[in-house]
Amino acid sequence: MPLYLALVHYPVSNKKGEVVATSITNLDIHDLARSAKTFGAQGVFFVTPVPSQQWFARRIIVHWSKGVGAVYNPTRKVAVELVRLVNDLPAVADAIRAETGRDPRFAATTAKQRPNAMAFAELRRQIESSDEPYCLVFGTGWGLQAELFEQMDFVLEPIRGPGDYNHLSVRSAVAIVLDRLMGRAAQQNEPENQ
Amino acid sequence: MPLYLALVHYPVSNKKGEVVATSITNLDIHDLARSAKTFGAQGVFFVTPVPSQQWFARRIIVHWSKGVGAVYNPTRKVAVELVRLVNDLPAVADAIRAETGRDPRFAATTAKQRPNAMAFAELRRQIESSDEPYCLVFGTGWGLQAELFEQMDFVLEPIRGPGDYNHLSVRSAVAIVLDRLMGRAAQQNEPENQ
Repeated sequence: MPLYLALVHYPVSNKKGEVVATSITNLDIHDLARSAKTFGAQGVFFVTPVPSQQWFARRIIVHWSKGVGAVYNPTRKVAVELVRLVNDLPAVADAIRAETGRDPRFAATTAKQRPNAMAFAELRRQIESSDEPYCLVFGTGWGLQAELFEQMDFVLEPIRGPGDYNHLSVRSAVAIVLDRLMGRAAQQNEPENQ
Repeated sequence: MPLYLALVHYPVSNKKGEVVATSITNLDIHDLARSAKTFGAQGVFFVTPVPSQQWFARRIIVHWSKGVGAVYNPTRKVAVELVRLVNDLPAVADAIRAETGRDPRFAATTAKQRPNAMAFAELRRQIESSDEPYCLVFGTGWGLQAELFEQMDFVLEPIRGPGDYNHLSVRSAVAIVLDRLMGRAAQQNEPENQ
């Protein structure tokens, strides 16, 4: 049941397929934190081994969770408090194990259809019925490095619309994946006669 | 069936409930365009009467749809081409009428539960079964000015997660609303034996 997110900035692909480290983006911190809080995730890991990137991200996190921003916007504070900075995915696993006592199941996300991809409905059922922690892994740049997929427990099916175009921003993809796994229809829970 | 988006920068509320004009954000242009293209929307209207804001947004749109950006990233080009700049919602209605020959039905979105809000499933059915154009209206800042809701044809129910927190970014909200109305599960349409 406990659900976590990881946004990987290294190792990811660039446009040419080379392995690179991308920069952490201010709006990614805010948008992923707010989506995570809305859909009940326990934590959002920003993954980068680059010290200057961690320093930059930590300034943003501290401003909104402890500094002037926390007073200005308390709803932002409780979201940004979910964000953690780590060097790599093993550090994500360590942190989740320390919090939950169990190893997380890592689910890679991708815009491409891959063999044996898990359907959203199936993962939703698993999360609802299991006590195991799950961690959804998202890539930046042109996506997670190919070899990372081998280290995941499974891959989630891509998001699709009515056509073939599916070049969503990572902010949009995270929002949709969380909604598909954890979202509610407001009126479902509020019948008129209750 | 034709579906449009409008992102309103004026008139919207600020934190104190005052009516203000917000700034157009570079990432809103990209994220909304990419979500719109993924989910089959016909156009994305950025609504502001402020000339300097329209000038700024037009530079971004031209760069990615006709300039160097269009060559660098063709998938971005076909998304950003959906973006139009208009002064107000009547101009949105005019543009949609010119394209489709029909008046659009305007659906306001909000994070608050409002009386007679339409369920996502109901709007999805209407869009699928009707020839009328629909336009989903999103606010920036602290949300659409209260009186704008009176001018809408209806209001859509808020997005909900498992709890009460629902402070999504507008980029995330647009992505989720489009997915709930137009999204597909990839594996639904790709049975193994075909």
